[in-house]
Amino acid sequence: MELEFWFSIGSTYTYLTVMRMNEIERNHNISLRLMPFSVRQIMLDMDNAPFPPNKASKVKYMWRDIERRATKYGFTANVPAPYPLQEFDRANKIALVGFQDGWIKDYVLQSYTNWFQSGLEAGGDENLAKTCNVLSLNMDDIIARSQSQEIDKLYKDQTSAAAKKGIFGSPSFMVGDEVFWGDDRLEDAIGWLKSH
Amino acid sequence: MELEFWFSIGSTYTYLTVMRMNEIERNHNISLRLMPFSVRQIMLDMDNAPFPPNKASKVKYMWRDIERRATKYGFTANVPAPYPLQEFDRANKIALVGFQDGWIKDYVLQSYTNWFQSGLEAGGDENLAKTCNVLSLNMDDIIARSQSQEIDKLYKDQTSAAAKKGIFGSPSFMVGDEVFWGDDRLEDAIGWLKSH
Repeated sequence: MELEFWFSIGSTYTYLTVMRMNEIERNHNISLRLMPFSVRQIMLDMDNAPFPPNKASKVKYMWRDIERRATKYGFTANVPAPYPLQEFDRANKIALVGFQDGWIKDYVLQSYTNWFQSGLEAGGDENLAKTCNVLSLNMDDIIARSQSQEIDKLYKDQTSAAAKKGIFGSPSFMVGDEVFWGDDRLEDAIGWLKSH
Repeated sequence: MELEFWFSIGSTYTYLTVMRMNEIERNHNISLRLMPFSVRQIMLDMDNAPFPPNKASKVKYMWRDIERRATKYGFTANVPAPYPLQEFDRANKIALVGFQDGWIKDYVLQSYTNWFQSGLEAGGDENLAKTCNVLSLNMDDIIARSQSQEIDKLYKDQTSAAAKKGIFGSPSFMVGDEVFWGDDRLEDAIGWLKSH
């Protein structure tokens, strides 16, 4: 059984899901289908900014909540991590290159690990260099491919598809027409997948 | 052990907690201390509108999520319920009268039941009449008391206290300095209460 995992690298709460991907697949005997899109574009279209600076208490809470939840899950989170990402689109376009090549999952996991554990923002040169090193990828080649018209079109298509499905945040999980939004709904989504 | 439950009548997700209050207290051997405040005022101060009409997909999701979660918990939710409330402040000021008199929990439970199961908006005349009938309260007397300077001051004080604690949404649960936001964090809050 396959569960669609829609996400943007750049979403903070998505860290909690990314770190659990392998365990979730193993424990529930499912595969996650990683579907990158631009949640930033969808939020701009909705005139929605979830954690802007003038919402200081909400931002403070977000980091603390992620930290507590990570601890509960059994891993660490060095918060606050650099935010928002300067190279948001690059990070996600490279994920789409990895989608085509088959290394998307390792790339996303490594990018988030470097971001939330080593403080290197995803999509940035340092993070990418480290990620490419671990995955034995050619960084210049990957960046060049991420700038192609093909990937740009795929990115836009993924984002339109997400919006059409009613997705407005990351992470989201799709089971048929049902949207489950947030790492804290992942178990609900799996339950729905298994019972429908 | 006591858990502070900060809320506003008018918050949609708070329905999920209100319906579980008695079961939570029994199953975890704790008491909830009901603390009404104006989440609307805090959101205005933060320039935050969580579910405005231009975020149609988010609003649609909210109702579906509440419906699914209610089913999971074992009760119903007739969604969409009337929203937003016309008499938000009246609903919460009456809760403060109930806080003083000791019937706050029954009032909140009955108000939400009438709102989410019978479609009568909380704070409105019909809902209040039904609630007062069930609780054997004099509706005119309760309304008059809710309009007193004393209750107005208490309402403002509660809201300032909530903001000072870092609360920005309803429901929120406080354990010491730790804020847990959302019905989906209630079990985390209870876990924290028992282990700290």
